[in-house]
Amino acid sequence: MRDLGNMRASLRTVCLTVLVSALMGAAAWAFLAALDLVTGARENHLWMFALLPVVNLATAWVYRNHGLRAARGNNLVIDSSITGTPIHARMAALTFVCSVATHAAGGSAGREGTAVQIGGTIASNVATLFHLDGRERQDLMLAGISAAFGGVFGTPLAGAFFGMEMCTIGKLNYSAGLYCLIASFVGDLTARTLGTTHAFNTIASVPAMEPATVALVVAAAVAFGLMARLFSLSIRTVKRIYASRIKNYLVAALVGSLVLLSVYAACGLYRYGGLSEWLVTAGFEGSTGPADVVAKLACTALTLGAGYQGGEVTPLFGIGAALGGWIGQISGVEPSFMAALGMVGVFGAALNVPITTIMLSVDMFGGQAAAYFVIVAFISYLVAGHRGVYPAQRIVTPKR
Amino acid sequence: MRDLGNMRASLRTVCLTVLVSALMGAAAWAFLAALDLVTGARENHLWMFALLPVVNLATAWVYRNHGLRAARGNNLVIDSSITGTPIHARMAALTFVCSVATHAAGGSAGREGTAVQIGGTIASNVATLFHLDGRERQDLMLAGISAAFGGVFGTPLAGAFFGMEMCTIGKLNYSAGLYCLIASFVGDLTARTLGTTHAFNTIASVPAMEPATVALVVAAAVAFGLMARLFSLSIRTVKRIYASRIKNYLVAALVGSLVLLSVYAACGLYRYGGLSEWLVTAGFEGSTGPADVVAKLACTALTLGAGYQGGEVTPLFGIGAALGGWIGQISGVEPSFMAALGMVGVFGAALNVPITTIMLSVDMFGGQAAAYFVIVAFISYLVAGHRGVYPAQRIVTPKR
Repeated sequence: MRDLGNMRASLRTVCLTVLVSALMGAAAWAFLAALDLVTGARENHLWMFALLPVVNLATAWVYRNHGLRAARGNNLVIDSSITGTPIHARMAALTFVCSVATHAAGGSAGREGTAVQIGGTIASNVATLFHLDGRERQDLMLAGISAAFGGVFGTPLAGAFFGMEMCTIGKLNYSAGLYCLIASFVGDLTARTLGTTHAFNTIASVPAMEPATVALVVAAAVAFGLMARLFSLSIRTVKRIYASRIKNYLVAALVGSLVLLSVYAACGLYRYGGLSEWLVTAGFEGSTGPADVVAKLACTALTLGAGYQGGEVTPLFGIGAALGGWIGQISGVEPSFMAALGMVGVFGAALNVPITTIMLSVDMFGGQAAAYFVIVAFISYLVAGHRGVYPAQRIVTPKR
Repeated sequence: MRDLGNMRASLRTVCLTVLVSALMGAAAWAFLAALDLVTGARENHLWMFALLPVVNLATAWVYRNHGLRAARGNNLVIDSSITGTPIHARMAALTFVCSVATHAAGGSAGREGTAVQIGGTIASNVATLFHLDGRERQDLMLAGISAAFGGVFGTPLAGAFFGMEMCTIGKLNYSAGLYCLIASFVGDLTARTLGTTHAFNTIASVPAMEPATVALVVAAAVAFGLMARLFSLSIRTVKRIYASRIKNYLVAALVGSLVLLSVYAACGLYRYGGLSEWLVTAGFEGSTGPADVVAKLACTALTLGAGYQGGEVTPLFGIGAALGGWIGQISGVEPSFMAALGMVGVFGAALNVPITTIMLSVDMFGGQAAAYFVIVAFISYLVAGHRGVYPAQRIVTPKR
């Protein structure tokens, strides 16, 4: 029997989890509403892409001079969860404003990075306020991550497991499970109550489990894992090139933004800017090709590699759905089925979160085709290797 | 990039996994066919309960004199998976014959214990034959466990995660994931190809996620966790009483069987003997009461505590479904919904396998009500404490 003191501590963590998650849910709602606003504006005003240099210069300057260590983004949240180092409240404000600016100017980025940093900041500050330390503080941090994911994507089950999986490779943090679960549901519920809505694509039909289909899914899972690898590698490479070739950080930021802008303009890739959620839908409809995959990958690498704020998940969804939908077309298998596998599989492999991957498929597609998603989750996870998009992840069980 | 030697080792493990799982699938088919046969016979011939003393005396004698260390059952398989100690081939034969005998005589027991011991024995012997050691041997052992669970219950997703979760508390063995997944599917497929069929009950309707429903589900999850605790405690207590009070092991076996027989006869509980799968159906129909729960619990504790061979899972399913169905009735919530939660929740809590619990619900109910199952899986897991039905489980992350 757990003793009373233990029970009291758990109960306190539960109460603080609800507090953190409600705050995070409200933040998720505000963030998504702001994104909607700027995305709508940008889609109607192509000139807003001209803001790209301004946004990147401002982002670089403010993070360098007033960002403390916030430029480390999700890696700082991971470190803070594991080591207990507090996160300054400024991190949340900075990432909120700068991410919205990224999307206003048409940078190709996502949302989970911003959300996780806001969630981590809220949790860390609440933990400090209530003098939590050790395991209690860690549990609250992971709960904050869960609330962020659940709130921003409207996927409470995936959110719950994301908090348990994000900080480590090859380990699921069972002991934070209950807090992460509560956090993700409260975060999602709060955002929805405030008016956030989420629309998921649907799988038109799931093919029967025959050897040929399983073989195709396995081959596709390998492709999804390789794509995840390529995604992380591309961002890392772009980042390294700018950092090593250009001494002055403002010049680097300017060059990075101009390269991105030139690529948009020269290749007419404006529609791959921002969240480009149409790409997921196109993947499900089977109207994507390899050009879509390459374009979104390039725009995202040039955006995140240049230092813009924003997340990786929505671009990963787009790239995965586009790749999957294309594999579906050329192999004669239902595109929406393959797009769903690709969307979830590339995401999970790039972030090293296989159980979250499975639960995300349950959130989005209601357990339909669960066996296929489990296959894709594990194979793409193994293929993706150890260097995901979060270098701070601790490797607990190496992949073999 | 994993190097070539690593790849070759992984490929060899995959091939051996398929071999082990196909053998295990065939064994699962044979075991289930034998159970069908003796269960049918016993249901038509009440006199077969008179075999109870003979079966227990024979079981006790053969395990004492020719069982090597096989009497430790699943705990031996867990130890062998973790430490690498080989398992003698005899373990599989003994548990097969003695478990079928238990069911012929009407002992209240299940199937997973037998299956896991057969799967573990096959895997251990194949590992020894091919000179596997270290991690490769462990992966093959876990795959054997997965093949056993998937094959015997017809639930490939739960089987996959059972192998990853069974040996430890608070740890999911990610690195064996791919092998466990392959094993569970091959085991299930082999058994089905040979003619095994499985029928799952269905949830008539899932209540909307409202505060009152969530509160009820949370309260029920606590009840399921406590029931799991009581289940393990009852078997342990019965075992300890017989062992401490009676010096001679044959006398203890005889007394144990006579006590069980008297309880059956005195209270007219014959229908709680064997697998009593009707109990699950009755739970789903909402026609169970607390008496059913107590009766099945008592019969199972007196059976397994007396030393009969067999597993715990099917009785746990029955007890959980009966308890859940009854909670559904008295609270005015759809009984089949609560019975499904109880069936899966009591099982997962007693065996300390929360992710398996969630996947089992996907296998059986197709992802319907997944959020409720996740809630039940985590809460009942926490409430059940550290002393589950497998004392050999290593505690990696303590529950808090």
